[in-house]
Amino acid sequence: MWMPSQLPEIAGQLRAAGFQGEPGDLAELAKPPMNAVVKVGGATGAFVSADGLVLTNHHVAFGVIQYNSKPERDLIGNGYIAADRAAELPANPDYRVLVTTGFDKITDRILAGARGKRGRAYYDAVDAATKAAVAECEREAGTRCSVANMYYGTDFYLIRQLELRDIRLVYAPPDAIGNYGDEVDNFMWPRHSGDFTLLRAYVGKDGKPADYSPDNVPYQPPGHLQIGTDPVREGDYAMLAGYPGVTFRHRMASEFKQQIEWQLPSRVALFDRMIDTIEAAAAKDADAKVRYAAQVASFKNTLKRAQGELDGLRRSDAVRVRGQDEAAMLTWLDKQPQAKATRADIDAAQKVLDASAATRERDQLLSAIRNQTQLLNAALTVQRLALERAKPDAQRESGYQQRDEVLITGRLKQVQRRYAPAVERELLLYLLKQYKALAPNLRVAEIDQVFPGEDEAAIRRGIDAVYARTGLGEEAARLQAIGADAKTLQGADDSLLQAAAILTPAFMRLEDEGKTRDGELLRLRPAYMRALIGYRKSQGRAVYPDANSTLRVSYGKVSTMDPRDGVRYRPLTTVQGIIEKHTGTAPFAAPQALREAIAQGDFGSTADPELKTQTVDFLTNLDTTGGNSGSPVLDAHGKLIGLNFDSNWEAVSASWMFDPRYKRAIHVDMRYLRWLLAKVYPAPHLLKEMNLPAE
Amino acid sequence: MWMPSQLPEIAGQLRAAGFQGEPGDLAELAKPPMNAVVKVGGATGAFVSADGLVLTNHHVAFGVIQYNSKPERDLIGNGYIAADRAAELPANPDYRVLVTTGFDKITDRILAGARGKRGRAYYDAVDAATKAAVAECEREAGTRCSVANMYYGTDFYLIRQLELRDIRLVYAPPDAIGNYGDEVDNFMWPRHSGDFTLLRAYVGKDGKPADYSPDNVPYQPPGHLQIGTDPVREGDYAMLAGYPGVTFRHRMASEFKQQIEWQLPSRVALFDRMIDTIEAAAAKDADAKVRYAAQVASFKNTLKRAQGELDGLRRSDAVRVRGQDEAAMLTWLDKQPQAKATRADIDAAQKVLDASAATRERDQLLSAIRNQTQLLNAALTVQRLALERAKPDAQRESGYQQRDEVLITGRLKQVQRRYAPAVERELLLYLLKQYKALAPNLRVAEIDQVFPGEDEAAIRRGIDAVYARTGLGEEAARLQAIGADAKTLQGADDSLLQAAAILTPAFMRLEDEGKTRDGELLRLRPAYMRALIGYRKSQGRAVYPDANSTLRVSYGKVSTMDPRDGVRYRPLTTVQGIIEKHTGTAPFAAPQALREAIAQGDFGSTADPELKTQTVDFLTNLDTTGGNSGSPVLDAHGKLIGLNFDSNWEAVSASWMFDPRYKRAIHVDMRYLRWLLAKVYPAPHLLKEMNLPAE
Repeated sequence: MWMPSQLPEIAGQLRAAGFQGEPGDLAELAKPPMNAVVKVGGATGAFVSADGLVLTNHHVAFGVIQYNSKPERDLIGNGYIAADRAAELPANPDYRVLVTTGFDKITDRILAGARGKRGRAYYDAVDAATKAAVAECEREAGTRCSVANMYYGTDFYLIRQLELRDIRLVYAPPDAIGNYGDEVDNFMWPRHSGDFTLLRAYVGKDGKPADYSPDNVPYQPPGHLQIGTDPVREGDYAMLAGYPGVTFRHRMASEFKQQIEWQLPSRVALFDRMIDTIEAAAAKDADAKVRYAAQVASFKNTLKRAQGELDGLRRSDAVRVRGQDEAAMLTWLDKQPQAKATRADIDAAQKVLDASAATRERDQLLSAIRNQTQLLNAALTVQRLALERAKPDAQRESGYQQRDEVLITGRLKQVQRRYAPAVERELLLYLLKQYKALAPNLRVAEIDQVFPGEDEAAIRRGIDAVYARTGLGEEAARLQAIGADAKTLQGADDSLLQAAAILTPAFMRLEDEGKTRDGELLRLRPAYMRALIGYRKSQGRAVYPDANSTLRVSYGKVSTMDPRDGVRYRPLTTVQGIIEKHTGTAPFAAPQALREAIAQGDFGSTADPELKTQTVDFLTNLDTTGGNSGSPVLDAHGKLIGLNFDSNWEAVSASWMFDPRYKRAIHVDMRYLRWLLAKVYPAPHLLKEMNLPAE
Repeated sequence: MWMPSQLPEIAGQLRAAGFQGEPGDLAELAKPPMNAVVKVGGATGAFVSADGLVLTNHHVAFGVIQYNSKPERDLIGNGYIAADRAAELPANPDYRVLVTTGFDKITDRILAGARGKRGRAYYDAVDAATKAAVAECEREAGTRCSVANMYYGTDFYLIRQLELRDIRLVYAPPDAIGNYGDEVDNFMWPRHSGDFTLLRAYVGKDGKPADYSPDNVPYQPPGHLQIGTDPVREGDYAMLAGYPGVTFRHRMASEFKQQIEWQLPSRVALFDRMIDTIEAAAAKDADAKVRYAAQVASFKNTLKRAQGELDGLRRSDAVRVRGQDEAAMLTWLDKQPQAKATRADIDAAQKVLDASAATRERDQLLSAIRNQTQLLNAALTVQRLALERAKPDAQRESGYQQRDEVLITGRLKQVQRRYAPAVERELLLYLLKQYKALAPNLRVAEIDQVFPGEDEAAIRRGIDAVYARTGLGEEAARLQAIGADAKTLQGADDSLLQAAAILTPAFMRLEDEGKTRDGELLRLRPAYMRALIGYRKSQGRAVYPDANSTLRVSYGKVSTMDPRDGVRYRPLTTVQGIIEKHTGTAPFAAPQALREAIAQGDFGSTADPELKTQTVDFLTNLDTTGGNSGSPVLDAHGKLIGLNFDSNWEAVSASWMFDPRYKRAIHVDMRYLRWLLAKVYPAPHLLKEMNLPAE
């Protein structure tokens, strides 16, 4: 996950891996291919024509397809082919395509006011400098700016992006192709999904970003990618650019240990017990079961992911590997100049982490009490909103600003559909019993005030009292409470609102403590990162910063994987696999047109010369994480050969540790896209626009 | 599945596949390697030393291990290593090793009395000639003889076997190695089982077969196999010899069609409904659930196998493939001399099959009524036994001869543990309801006499009456009934015995009809087989007879398999897979000694030079079926490289159709055996005896 600016530094590696282009060119955001890689709907996409055609995943553009679907025009089920530009359908107005145009290091500017400060003050100084830099940058119309923190506070970059606001739907395959396999195949190999969609960015007649207007014209990007026509083979060089969200690979060894030995197992245990508690409480109440179905499904998903991450980190022996690596780094560090000052910072950071670890059981429980309840959460939300609303908008806590109020209202309306009194009380009882078992120094006075007593009977009485006299079970009461100020709420004769009024200052105090710790870590972690970068350099290796939703590049090759002894995943799937999986029932209901075309076997120039059939998806060892959806995969010559859309289950743990044995990424083979556009759901005008053979 | 005598005929194919030996030698039963391949406990094994050491599967020798296990000496759990010859443990007295010494075509002798006859008379003539040939052959002491019917009555061979009766246990790995994965891994790849055991055959001091005696001496076989020391690699030539049980590959196209379109689907449906019926009837009776657990498990297994076979045959498009093949054969046949007579026989055979198909629903139901009940089955058994006992023993129906009575008594004792009145009645009700829905011409008078009426209430009354007054629910009454003659039974005041007395003649009549059909098919099928053999010859291809538990050879190679698009099974598994699967709980509880040895990584001369670790099992495309368990797998030079023990799930349908895409066989790599004997559960004296490196 290299920053483009780092690629000249690793030019030798790129060439050794088979890259045939000029590594220096990859560092230039204003040149192809980087100027063609865009941020789309929270993920990634790429320009694929001179007229602003954007290729991304079906699942990334799904909101756009859904927005344009109507009962009488089912674009999800049937897909969509705009016959001409006039037929291209406007996306939802908040849908954006962002083109990164600037990426400048402004570390000194961001840290100038923070130097010499500590804790919360350090945090606030960085925050203030960041906001100022963004505000200044965004003075230019049509520009969105942000500050990216690289290497955990070591460097800061000002990112400038062109914000394209008129995006239109051009071509989507039926959902049964774009999402073939859905949740069943998610994270699995082999995959057989045609997870792509074509959009087009439009601008005003002046060429500048504009809101939707029928008068707008297609955006002419300064560069675009050319879809390749050469076959894809095992071992071929591949590279990928995109906007990976977040990784933790350069966290300290103690954090790896905590993640594996406490965080993930305790998350598994907590969610497992919460699922049991909800299911038991709702067992005899069919209505409650329905109300909690979504929450239970989400808990099960969290549990599965946590277990997958845990299994993966254990399989990779991550505690030992990261621990040995850090120990070797510290040994090296001790022989360097200024080792002492660096070690002091690292030790201080460790102390902050230790302090945080000391309260982790409590913090995990309080987070569940606050976030996994429905009615109590609603009461805490309105209390907090009332407090924040008393401040100027810019100073309000993120999530409680003016622009968030619509979202809050929406969430509080939903409570109705997700709440059953008996279930919430049982869940709270379970969590409070765990809380009451904590060491005395971890207890929070306000919690004990609202829920006094130690044994189950006493806790139950406390819960009964809190829920005894509340109107928040009614939507109208909740919506009214959103509008109220703190004083009105304090005076309300509502037992739950009164409880929330007591609890809210406690939660805010704990949040403050967190920000103080975050500020200290922001100040101290750079010492660790510099030591790590120095140590790696001594080994002849460069270090990329952990992912943070900024533009990154990874390189590797089309690759098999051995998921377990005796089994090898082959790197290319074929249309025969679609037929093998086809059951006629979603998510394996391949459309008849597709099945007929497969039976026909007319694959033309898109057939694989070795496999003698049509490929669908392929596997590489490229480094990706959430946010890389829609990333273009390029061959050694920079031609677009694949569209990233998933990774394998064994790689769930890659957010913490990249294990080359198990980390794979899954891409749509561009030959499948070409075949669908040529033979199955024809769009010859788009093939022509993308400068591709008609068949 | 070639008869050894056919191998010179396909010498060119063998050499082209990579065989380095002399194909003619393989046809000689008195020469190595064929004289080393033996029949063991219903399956296969091979001599691997000059002193009569026999290598076979752990599961083939399991009875011997179990027979020698005692609470204080758990040979199943701990395995066994005989420190010297004196410590070798005698097998159960009925355990046999058979060495095939003669294989002579006696077609004329067997068919002499049958020619000109038809139906039941043809059947009886063949049966009488067979019995006479066997009796004459077995006059020689220590010899077991049988007549094998090849190509469905086309040829008959007299098989002469040396019968070794003193077999001893020499070396067995712990069950957690020999049966690692058990039912979970059964039919699956990748496998990690060390499914082998070493036995030793003993003879009297005169060198002749003898019952166990401490004075006996190790048998000196005229030949034995040498375990190889070269690595096994993908693509290597491999061949296997053994005693495959039964295949149906040369059945007529209409029989394939019936198997796929009626037999397997109707079996799936019937067993599915029987399972439902039993489970519903036992739902509220925990005791009944336990009593029927084994039967339900066996039904589920039957169902799973039938579904697997059906899936496989459909995947191989068997109806179409076999249909086209037969049509092409008939077209060819019509141009040959004597085509008319052959066609007449083939058409007549088809008519017999059609007649049989006309009653198939009824026959399937009556078979279930007779065989899948417990108490009714017991009553039918004692009635039939009483009738058979009135005949001279040699003329009694097979299964009701004197030697079978111990087995019958044992089975009838078991009834107690597998029977609950309410469940049997519900099962019978379900089956009788199906029976009553049959066309009138399919009804059987005696069934309607015992179970009169058409609607459910009437059938229920009939069942009530049959079970109203019976003592057979008591073990003592059943055992007493076994001893009774027909007259006594007829006079018994037992409603179930009375019903069985009425039903038994009906079942015998239907059996007779079956034998008449079998006789006709025995007479007519050779025309079909000769046409098929002639047609194949015109294509330059030889035809092996369908398997019939006689010695066969197949050849092929160490091979990957692609079970589905995007997935490839690798041909070799390694000890790392044992660790991956290890859970500590059976069937994945790898012994500590094994895990420690794997962690140690001291694989010596048995390590794979490419994989750099210890291999466990390997996969070939060799043709096998039930009975091939324990078959030795030889390399191009005739060295023993593997021990066959399983095949893959996709190959369940291979008993009907050999599809080279999906048929694989699974073998223990002899390097794993060598490593276990050298390093994990050491037996240096056995390695020395087998002329193998000590480590």
